[in-house]
Amino acid sequence: MPSADNPRRSERSRAAILQATQELIRELPYGKISIEGIAARAKVGKQTIYRWWRSKGALVVDALHEQNAAGAQEAMALPDTGDLAADMRLVLRATVDEFTSPDFEPLFRALSIESLQDPALQQQIVERIYRPQFEFVAARFRSAQDAGQVRPDADLAVAFELFMAPMFYRWQSGAHPLTHDHADAVVDLAMRALAP
Amino acid sequence: MPSADNPRRSERSRAAILQATQELIRELPYGKISIEGIAARAKVGKQTIYRWWRSKGALVVDALHEQNAAGAQEAMALPDTGDLAADMRLVLRATVDEFTSPDFEPLFRALSIESLQDPALQQQIVERIYRPQFEFVAARFRSAQDAGQVRPDADLAVAFELFMAPMFYRWQSGAHPLTHDHADAVVDLAMRALAP
Repeated sequence: MPSADNPRRSERSRAAILQATQELIRELPYGKISIEGIAARAKVGKQTIYRWWRSKGALVVDALHEQNAAGAQEAMALPDTGDLAADMRLVLRATVDEFTSPDFEPLFRALSIESLQDPALQQQIVERIYRPQFEFVAARFRSAQDAGQVRPDADLAVAFELFMAPMFYRWQSGAHPLTHDHADAVVDLAMRALAP
Repeated sequence: MPSADNPRRSERSRAAILQATQELIRELPYGKISIEGIAARAKVGKQTIYRWWRSKGALVVDALHEQNAAGAQEAMALPDTGDLAADMRLVLRATVDEFTSPDFEPLFRALSIESLQDPALQQQIVERIYRPQFEFVAARFRSAQDAGQVRPDADLAVAFELFMAPMFYRWQSGAHPLTHDHADAVVDLAMRALAP
């Protein structure tokens, strides 16, 4: 296949495949999306996809990663106004917006489904998505510890989960609405739990 | 099909289908399980399954529900020793045990995958699994409010998530280990957050 060995043409195919994946995830229930469907939308052969990705799940990780990268690495850094509660309210309200956004939510749903089905992919998600995000949060928490707003002995992974897990759980369970008011309530409780 | 109209034979088929579902979920990655495979294991025709269940997901909800029922409704009631922190440590340690148990974890994983793929099923899970469990927890929290261990104005759904969501998130993300020590740390933080 000489075409796939042409770097410019390869790059175009790769971008078309990732875009087709993002589009289809927004348009269809995840179970209805196949590698065949992605290939047809991207106007490439199935074998071109399998040349770069071992599964639909691996493709979803790259599609989300690219969307995040487009939204910019710097967006992952947390605001630092000196007031952790105010900053975390912004972060958790933005999380609510993402979990209720037609652009973001379907991709996140696809990622969660694939992660539950494929332990190797789950570990890739931890390395490529969870850890970089956690590092930014941990840096913000350390600055709050220096400011006397968080106990110096707090476990920062547990502290991160204290803010983020309730948002995630509420989204996934569907038992109660995800709103900005709810985000604020979670921040109040988490701050109380972490106070020196 | 006269056989399916014989109530005793129907009941035997139904039980065989649910047991085959539970067994296969423990044996195979969830994506490898099909209605055909369940029918073969249960020694029934595919059409017998579709007579009672509209999808693999609906079957998974009943399979988990039956396993819980076998484990008994009373197991859902929370201990009440008068010390909420001690009682929640027991509950969260038991949750860790379930999330790491080869009997329970694969069923819970299957349920999470199906719930993310099917909004109607998600709502069924809320009604049949989440709400009954929440009612037991809320009853225990109200007793802790009476005992002055939880703020009287606490939102009990948010309080429930404060304990449970970190366990769930840690299980699903796979970023950090789920241990009894972690359960204890979550209880300490949640109690601090909810203290009057």
